Amino acid sequence: MKPYTELTKEELIALKSELETEFEDVKGKGLNLNMSRGKPAAAQLDMAEGLLGIISKNEDAFAEDGTDCRNYGVLTGLPEARKLMADMCEVSPDKVIVYGNASLSIMFDTVSRSFARGVAGCTPWCKLDHVKFLCPVPGYDRHFGVTEYFGVEMINVPMTPEGPDMDLVEKLVAEDDSIKGIWCVPKYSNPQGYTYSDETVRRFARLQPAAKDFRIFWDNAYIVHHLYDEEERQDHLLNIIEECEKAGNPDLVYEFVSTSKISYPGAGIAALVSSKANLEEAKQYMNFQIIGHDKLNQLRHVKYYKDMDGIKAQMTKHASIMRPKFETVLQVLEEELGGLGIGSWSKPNGGYFISFDAMEGCAKKIVAKAKEAGLTMTGAGATFPYHKDPKDSNIRIAPSFPTPEELALAGKIFVLSVKLVSIDRILGDME
Amino acid sequence: MKPYTELTKEELIALKSELETEFEDVKGKGLNLNMSRGKPAAAQLDMAEGLLGIISKNEDAFAEDGTDCRNYGVLTGLPEARKLMADMCEVSPDKVIVYGNASLSIMFDTVSRSFARGVAGCTPWCKLDHVKFLCPVPGYDRHFGVTEYFGVEMINVPMTPEGPDMDLVEKLVAEDDSIKGIWCVPKYSNPQGYTYSDETVRRFARLQPAAKDFRIFWDNAYIVHHLYDEEERQDHLLNIIEECEKAGNPDLVYEFVSTSKISYPGAGIAALVSSKANLEEAKQYMNFQIIGHDKLNQLRHVKYYKDMDGIKAQMTKHASIMRPKFETVLQVLEEELGGLGIGSWSKPNGGYFISFDAMEGCAKKIVAKAKEAGLTMTGAGATFPYHKDPKDSNIRIAPSFPTPEELALAGKIFVLSVKLVSIDRILGDME
Repeated sequence: MKPYTELTKEELIALKSELETEFEDVKGKGLNLNMSRGKPAAAQLDMAEGLLGIISKNEDAFAEDGTDCRNYGVLTGLPEARKLMADMCEVSPDKVIVYGNASLSIMFDTVSRSFARGVAGCTPWCKLDHVKFLCPVPGYDRHFGVTEYFGVEMINVPMTPEGPDMDLVEKLVAEDDSIKGIWCVPKYSNPQGYTYSDETVRRFARLQPAAKDFRIFWDNAYIVHHLYDEEERQDHLLNIIEECEKAGNPDLVYEFVSTSKISYPGAGIAALVSSKANLEEAKQYMNFQIIGHDKLNQLRHVKYYKDMDGIKAQMTKHASIMRPKFETVLQVLEEELGGLGIGSWSKPNGGYFISFDAMEGCAKKIVAKAKEAGLTMTGAGATFPYHKDPKDSNIRIAPSFPTPEELALAGKIFVLSVKLVSIDRILGDME
Repeated sequence: MKPYTELTKEELIALKSELETEFEDVKGKGLNLNMSRGKPAAAQLDMAEGLLGIISKNEDAFAEDGTDCRNYGVLTGLPEARKLMADMCEVSPDKVIVYGNASLSIMFDTVSRSFARGVAGCTPWCKLDHVKFLCPVPGYDRHFGVTEYFGVEMINVPMTPEGPDMDLVEKLVAEDDSIKGIWCVPKYSNPQGYTYSDETVRRFARLQPAAKDFRIFWDNAYIVHHLYDEEERQDHLLNIIEECEKAGNPDLVYEFVSTSKISYPGAGIAALVSSKANLEEAKQYMNFQIIGHDKLNQLRHVKYYKDMDGIKAQMTKHASIMRPKFETVLQVLEEELGGLGIGSWSKPNGGYFISFDAMEGCAKKIVAKAKEAGLTMTGAGATFPYHKDPKDSNIRIAPSFPTPEELALAGKIFVLSVKLVSIDRILGDME
């Protein structure tokens, strides 16, 4: 098939009519599918069944050091839970605080704390006229939501397959002391599935920000979330904690991790990984916010996974479910859109998303078109601060939740929507 | 025995010497007991064993409406969990949001939100020069900690057996629009075990604060925590939500409850109860802070307790353990200190504490003395904002955690400490 832009007006009109018939046909199948979020499928959750009842007797409820996990206390998390999360991040347990079920809450509270009380003895952000964050785009909507909630001014930084444009990051943080942070999903990034290169990580670790209270918000959400078992098809990310230490910038980064997509999105455990000084500040806040997070759930995770081998084994099982879904979507995209010049997409080795870039000005219309046929996708623009994609081009595809059958149909609806909207766009340009 | 103040100097010196011998004797028993917090005893926690494993198969993990509680979603809590907490508070479920394991976090986040974004469209508190809270004293140290963390100026309001001094509360909130809140533990108050009278609750509901964004922080921590099964020995608290509605002030109050001392302190569920407008504001914040709290744990509670009858049955069992402990302490106090004029104490029908008022200037010394013999009590002053008890008189006794045997010894240590410190005080006055 020729690229659409090389077709004549007549060819396009004929094609459009054909595609419209096809679209009406798939619309008639009455799909009602929400593919908007990166939700694990029920089949993945079923795999952690052993976690559910692993504590079922009173005598099961005690930590290794004898702590009664049912009662109050242990602000920074059970030692064995800290060790498990530390092993996942390849750091020592004293660099880890284990929280409740949501790393998003740790990020939110970290920003909230910076506003209320400041960071490293600097002026609380709520007392400043301007607080800015760098936002690699496309990125994760909930990150941008947190900073938007607090009135932070967000500055787009383009993503590349190596990570954010580091020339721009270095320049901006060096010259503007109102830039206080940057949102990063460094491994299998949301939505592109890119992993930051070693050089990018090292440049992050060596940043020299004008603001003393500038911090990297390193959301390592997909740290063990590979699609392939073969080592050579797994991305490798440098250890940012170690790199920051080596660079003499130990306090520069907050790393966030969770088991949301290892055990359960609704009932996992989450952790903050950082330097001693940063954890000390976090503890000051926690000390007033809570007596202790749910230790029974921390203990469940430790008893069930035991160690990194346990976690890796679980993730291999997850991959066996995720991989065919990603491959289905990628195959449909390749077969149906390859060579047409109306879209490009990422081909990740892990994570939860495929990023699709439509022709400029088409993303919103494509998402609306798919919705007509019962397919809800992530809102166009959601991958940018303030929901404003300057090119109206990026669409996040989240293949994890649907069944393979639903996914095949959803793929069809999506490519038809892309084709129809793109034809209109090209026809419009001809007028 | 005569009151100590009526004894001669010689009698006091002789008595002191006798008591010192006794003190050395109990000190020799090598007690190492922490009675500083209101922690349930292991025997109480054992009673909820059925809760632990009530969800152990994949098919158990679904809510009544089919929601997969393992996955993301349901920001405001499972409908059946909202109903359970609503029934406890005698309100409709639409007035309830169910959170994670800590009502303290809901309170903290409510204050945090008021600072960051303001309340009811008013200026965010972080932009104000003065933010003040009224603090009925003695009160709960962690409440005062939250407001201290955010730099709130705290104003003491004396407690009475009917609740806070309402003449003062009414006057202060009417004349000072920088007063934004008041901390209340309205039932079996911490530490005195007082329950606000109907008249007090109605006066709260009818408050006319100068600040539109003034809110009552109604921490109903001991809502079903009676010591006695007989109805006539249970305190009854008016429903503040209902009273505020009746008074035309539906948005005046935030009520906080939890199952921390029903199921588990470390792994219970907590709720915010308030008007539609107030919950809407809370949801705005939650919407950015978290995707959803731990629904599996909410479901465990619903499956285990089923309804208020289930909760009441559990609380009757708790009372059977708590009651003899309270009675032991009260008996030691009465037998050893009754009529001596060196202390007075509350005799609550529920809750977790007994409040002891020593002679002025003696509380810190008594707590230090008890510590000498291995008994750690709540720090003197902790029941006041900034840890400053102006009379250095109030001591919080927390009888729940020790075994009955430990408690008997602890009681002995405490009364000896009171006697010795009081004699020194009286002798000092004689000089």
